[in-house]
Amino acid sequence: MATTTTAHRHRAVPPPRGFARAELEARTARAQRAMAAERLDALLLTTEPEVRWFSGFHTRFWESPTRPWFMVVPADGAPIAVIPEIGAAGMSKTWIDDVRTWPSPVPEDDGVSLLVDTLRGLPRRHGRVGLAMGPGSHVRMPLADLDRIRASAPMMLTDAQPLLDRLRAIKSEAEIDKIRHACRLAAESFDAVPALLAPGVTERAVARAFVTDLVGRGADAVPYLALASGPGGYGDIIMGPSDRGLAAGDVMIIDTGATFDGYFCDFDRNWAVGRADEAARAAYRACWMATEAGLAAARPGATAGDLHAAMWRVLQSHGARGEGDVGRMGHGLGMQLTEGHSNRPGDSTVLRPGMVLTLEPGMSFAPGRLMVHEEDLVVRDGGPELLTPRASPELPVV
Amino acid sequence: MATTTTAHRHRAVPPPRGFARAELEARTARAQRAMAAERLDALLLTTEPEVRWFSGFHTRFWESPTRPWFMVVPADGAPIAVIPEIGAAGMSKTWIDDVRTWPSPVPEDDGVSLLVDTLRGLPRRHGRVGLAMGPGSHVRMPLADLDRIRASAPMMLTDAQPLLDRLRAIKSEAEIDKIRHACRLAAESFDAVPALLAPGVTERAVARAFVTDLVGRGADAVPYLALASGPGGYGDIIMGPSDRGLAAGDVMIIDTGATFDGYFCDFDRNWAVGRADEAARAAYRACWMATEAGLAAARPGATAGDLHAAMWRVLQSHGARGEGDVGRMGHGLGMQLTEGHSNRPGDSTVLRPGMVLTLEPGMSFAPGRLMVHEEDLVVRDGGPELLTPRASPELPVV
Repeated sequence: MATTTTAHRHRAVPPPRGFARAELEARTARAQRAMAAERLDALLLTTEPEVRWFSGFHTRFWESPTRPWFMVVPADGAPIAVIPEIGAAGMSKTWIDDVRTWPSPVPEDDGVSLLVDTLRGLPRRHGRVGLAMGPGSHVRMPLADLDRIRASAPMMLTDAQPLLDRLRAIKSEAEIDKIRHACRLAAESFDAVPALLAPGVTERAVARAFVTDLVGRGADAVPYLALASGPGGYGDIIMGPSDRGLAAGDVMIIDTGATFDGYFCDFDRNWAVGRADEAARAAYRACWMATEAGLAAARPGATAGDLHAAMWRVLQSHGARGEGDVGRMGHGLGMQLTEGHSNRPGDSTVLRPGMVLTLEPGMSFAPGRLMVHEEDLVVRDGGPELLTPRASPELPVV
Repeated sequence: MATTTTAHRHRAVPPPRGFARAELEARTARAQRAMAAERLDALLLTTEPEVRWFSGFHTRFWESPTRPWFMVVPADGAPIAVIPEIGAAGMSKTWIDDVRTWPSPVPEDDGVSLLVDTLRGLPRRHGRVGLAMGPGSHVRMPLADLDRIRASAPMMLTDAQPLLDRLRAIKSEAEIDKIRHACRLAAESFDAVPALLAPGVTERAVARAFVTDLVGRGADAVPYLALASGPGGYGDIIMGPSDRGLAAGDVMIIDTGATFDGYFCDFDRNWAVGRADEAARAAYRACWMATEAGLAAARPGATAGDLHAAMWRVLQSHGARGEGDVGRMGHGLGMQLTEGHSNRPGDSTVLRPGMVLTLEPGMSFAPGRLMVHEEDLVVRDGGPELLTPRASPELPVV
């Protein structure tokens, strides 16, 4: 456990944990103004980030899929928690006062009648309850139970995904502080990677040392890590690490999503082992310059599609053909590794100050060889604030 | 990064990664026999453990909620992957040959028509497609897309949860080896905890050192960790760690779910700091003896409800009143932190050799004071195989 001691010396001062009650109350007030405009009597929330955004309720217990958790946001007043009894003690410490529980798991009625009763108890003005139904969402409860709720709820369930996305897209300074801290910790661990790289060292050993270093420095968890390597380039960016041993001439990437107080960083770094061929160097430069173009374009009023276009023009001018078919070059970032919009052609999401997002240009530069860069930023009036220290402009050779 | 070096000295030899193709093929064959009995033309899978159980496809990329992933298991022949293009390279390395992709994210049609076309291409005998709809499940795709699939699929979607639960409940020896290894690594890290405990040390510092130690020893990830402490006992088992500093007289629990090659351990340990009062000692003994009773009852042919009854009788005889309302005392274990059955009154799941589960007796022994124990086992003919070294019979005082 010496890692912790070593890392302490370098540790950045972490921002405060949690959120002021006033901030949580203001989120609900914002939501209720949007609900009124969309004629919703309530919002029904079923997933961890949704429930946490409104309540501040923060636990890793959602890792257990057994029990459903619900939160109902009425048109007026504070949200109502409809949750398993095992969560009552934790929820009682948030600003949510109305906590209704059942001794879950009860497969024959796992919160369904309690939830329906809760909805029945609300004023019925429009007959509509908003639930996330759109891109990137899922409803976290058994489908059989959802069907029962749809059949017996006193209101029609309707899509609230656009409303919820809009609310969460603009981060508060307290949220940004958490993301910035996660980015800083991961950046420090990326700086420690070159010392690990040598021919024969396995991808898995590098990943393991990276994660222990990152947690030792102060990350709460590293829910996402992908590591890939290959001679002259890697061919995949979502599968590793494997037991492959590094060799001179390899290019290696680590892409990580680490959290601090429930907020993610999501960025990557590339290295060459021993030597790098010109094709890899050129692809690296192209991605670096594409990121520059993305940064220049990341102004309030631009769209996510504009970001894609700016980066793609640079990649194309450096010989990229096709887009690798990964479908986008970056995305919203916050309580989830990826959330909200995508930087893709046709995404008309308008950038606004306070939005946090990644720029993730990537290209296939030879058969089976990819190059991907990623940085994180906050949209600000006057130009983006980078949350990640900018990657080196040339492919680092270790 | 000294942790890794230190831990190497103690590292248990890990079992092989992945699964033999023959095992994956046999899983599909077993599924297809069950599907025939239930008159299903296909299974539709949407979640990570389901897709991985059939294909061996193993990535942490599911952490990104943006893209849906599908797998269709036809009545005959190998499963068909219907997945985002970003996963094609990885899926092509599994035994699945039929990999159909689209350049996700495409919000206007994110795999929906490709999936419906895939279902249309299958022989239609019974007009039924099985999908997990029951307890513990969710459908991992936007509800709006699911509604479109239900409306346009050539077959009716019907609940396949019992079938999928039965298939996954019996673990192969290769699966058990992975769980056993995860348990062994976590047990070693638990053994290192007493050296960390001292008045003034924060819960968070203990958790951080525990996680770095566990990853350093060889765990791939620690997706679940809860840590709680309090004077004479803790009042919650799902929320921590916090910045609370330990003090003499505290009782502390760590409950962890660490993974090796995608398989979880899930167990806990308790310690007292400096001294322990008799109430905490007695509650600890009661939980320890309840676990003994659970182990004695964990024989093929017994039900999950029998396990609960055996443990609850012991707790009751030691003064437990009510059941703490956590709803159950253990559960199935494997690719998810909690999966399959619950040890609760009325759960009629029959224990069969090869099932892996936890025994998790707990009681409230004073207002706001809980005691919870947990061990992991395999059901075997002749008596259970413990996967966790048995906790000390007396509350350890550090």
